[in-house]
Amino acid sequence: MTVSTVRAREELRVQIERELARHLAQRTEVACDYGEQFATLWRCAARHVFGGKLVRPILFVEMTQALTGQPDSAAPSHERGTVITLAAALELLHYSFLLHDDVIDGDLLRRHVPNLIGEMRGAHPASPGEPSLHWGRTSGILMGDLLLAGAHQTFARADVAYCTRLRLLDLLDHTVTESVAGEQADVALSDAVIAPDLQTIVTMMAHKTATYSFELPLRAEAILAGSPLGTERELREAGRHLGLAFQLQDDLMAVFGDAAEHGKDALSDLREAKQTVIIAYARMTDVWPQIAPSFGSHEITVADAERIRELLTRCGAQGFAEQLIDEHVRALYELLAGSLDIPPDAQQVLLTCVQHLEGRRR
Amino acid sequence: MTVSTVRAREELRVQIERELARHLAQRTEVACDYGEQFATLWRCAARHVFGGKLVRPILFVEMTQALTGQPDSAAPSHERGTVITLAAALELLHYSFLLHDDVIDGDLLRRHVPNLIGEMRGAHPASPGEPSLHWGRTSGILMGDLLLAGAHQTFARADVAYCTRLRLLDLLDHTVTESVAGEQADVALSDAVIAPDLQTIVTMMAHKTATYSFELPLRAEAILAGSPLGTERELREAGRHLGLAFQLQDDLMAVFGDAAEHGKDALSDLREAKQTVIIAYARMTDVWPQIAPSFGSHEITVADAERIRELLTRCGAQGFAEQLIDEHVRALYELLAGSLDIPPDAQQVLLTCVQHLEGRRR
Repeated sequence: MTVSTVRAREELRVQIERELARHLAQRTEVACDYGEQFATLWRCAARHVFGGKLVRPILFVEMTQALTGQPDSAAPSHERGTVITLAAALELLHYSFLLHDDVIDGDLLRRHVPNLIGEMRGAHPASPGEPSLHWGRTSGILMGDLLLAGAHQTFARADVAYCTRLRLLDLLDHTVTESVAGEQADVALSDAVIAPDLQTIVTMMAHKTATYSFELPLRAEAILAGSPLGTERELREAGRHLGLAFQLQDDLMAVFGDAAEHGKDALSDLREAKQTVIIAYARMTDVWPQIAPSFGSHEITVADAERIRELLTRCGAQGFAEQLIDEHVRALYELLAGSLDIPPDAQQVLLTCVQHLEGRRR
Repeated sequence: MTVSTVRAREELRVQIERELARHLAQRTEVACDYGEQFATLWRCAARHVFGGKLVRPILFVEMTQALTGQPDSAAPSHERGTVITLAAALELLHYSFLLHDDVIDGDLLRRHVPNLIGEMRGAHPASPGEPSLHWGRTSGILMGDLLLAGAHQTFARADVAYCTRLRLLDLLDHTVTESVAGEQADVALSDAVIAPDLQTIVTMMAHKTATYSFELPLRAEAILAGSPLGTERELREAGRHLGLAFQLQDDLMAVFGDAAEHGKDALSDLREAKQTVIIAYARMTDVWPQIAPSFGSHEITVADAERIRELLTRCGAQGFAEQLIDEHVRALYELLAGSLDIPPDAQQVLLTCVQHLEGRRR
């Protein structure tokens, strides 16, 4: 990225954070009428929403600028307002999914510090007993509901033409359905309701992550910009490739990466028996009997993890996941090279995403 | 109710059920693209949505007819469609709240049979082990999300004038916020985060139940009918009185009523230490030390419950709750008698509600 791109992105981040802060402050103000506990829940949510990198809203706004062919500041102020408000709603939707995901997985930490569930649990007078865990989980469910509702409210009120709003609502509807189906498939894999074969896992990843993280922002901006249906279709495909590449890389980093850097517990994916492409591949090789006893064990040690990492590399699982990432990146390049519908500026936004992905690789 | 009113209500119930069935069939159809598990979840939801008495949607449609001064069949068909679609959305919103409430309370039964959580748990291959309970609870969280999103989608697409739709969205926003605040207060009372004093419990009941069950349908129809703000305000007050009277009666029936008739476990409110007005009153009397040891005990017996019932009657708690119901009913009558804004037909709908309430009393 050039210096001016970096600066523009920083300004954008500030704008989106300001909109999020405005929304959350207004909500917290209303919450005060319902007593201290409800206000505490909103204040807690406000702190945790700001923990993210705003990948989705930034992608959304940058693509809108690319598709409408003008920097954000040149657009009429009410249109600029609509774009930033929708961008903030994407982050609230993301955080809502994250919260219910954490409740379902029983996670109390994110990036080594208590998440909203852990923090609300800690605020309970009987912490860390059973009622405090119930209080934390309840907080996660209820705040997820409030933010899911809030994201829908923003889409429903978008200050755009009637048919544009309907297309946005259709897209949101599709996104929520597909993301929930993906989350259900993820739990079905962990709870052994469905068999963890490779194709099932890739489909689950696409639905659970790619759909709302990449397809939604890319398609929403195509709709807002009044782009032809062909552009929306190609952007959807681009989003699918990007989403899968990023998720595959996350899964690789969780097992092989530097825990201090990516902020996840280095053992958590193995301890929780997370069904990833890496594991599905290893399961088909003859090293699996050596991995199986530790996989999903709550007693897993750092030494076990080190041994499993070596086995996953030796059997080719690591290489297979890396190759899959390469395939998705190559497919994206081919899509862009042959595209008649994605204009050059928009292609550049996608290429910057790929560069970011490559920059994360080791 | 006259014979023709009963017949009209039956026809209405059929219309609303048909709309719910249409919505759920369409959702199940889409779900099939995401695999058997997701379709199973939707089919399960479709069965359970039909368990209710449709109190909220029927109140909504009857009041709309009363406020617009014409029976439903005389309205233009697209307006009729909008009313029935919104009515169905009220039931989906209700069921969404119920599902997350059941997840939070750990309930697996409703009216003596497995609820959606219990049924999905039973469908798990390892039922009734720990993974199957996780699968059931996950199903409850995810279906609650889907239906909450679905209710918002219906409000967002309502085929009404722009400013009417905005007023409906404002009302939905207020309702979701207040209901979630009420649910949080209910859990805060059970988890001993806040003190169970009388006013806190009444406020919790108003927020958790009256707001979405009575105020929402009554206010929504006032908005749809284009009634003056005064009408909406008075209907809100009427909804508050009705909602509190119904909830107080539910609480009385749970402890003193005939379990076979109302379908709730006769001991469950006592076992789960549900903080009701009855309990709050008893806590202030000198019989409380005799009740306290059994209240919230998982070992509570039928004999304990019988003894507690006698104590609750003797100390005046039962009489106090009955008196509170009377006060809310009287306040509603006074509101109607002095009302300039609620037309006679609409008053009749509210009076029929009160008659239904009185009919339930023993």
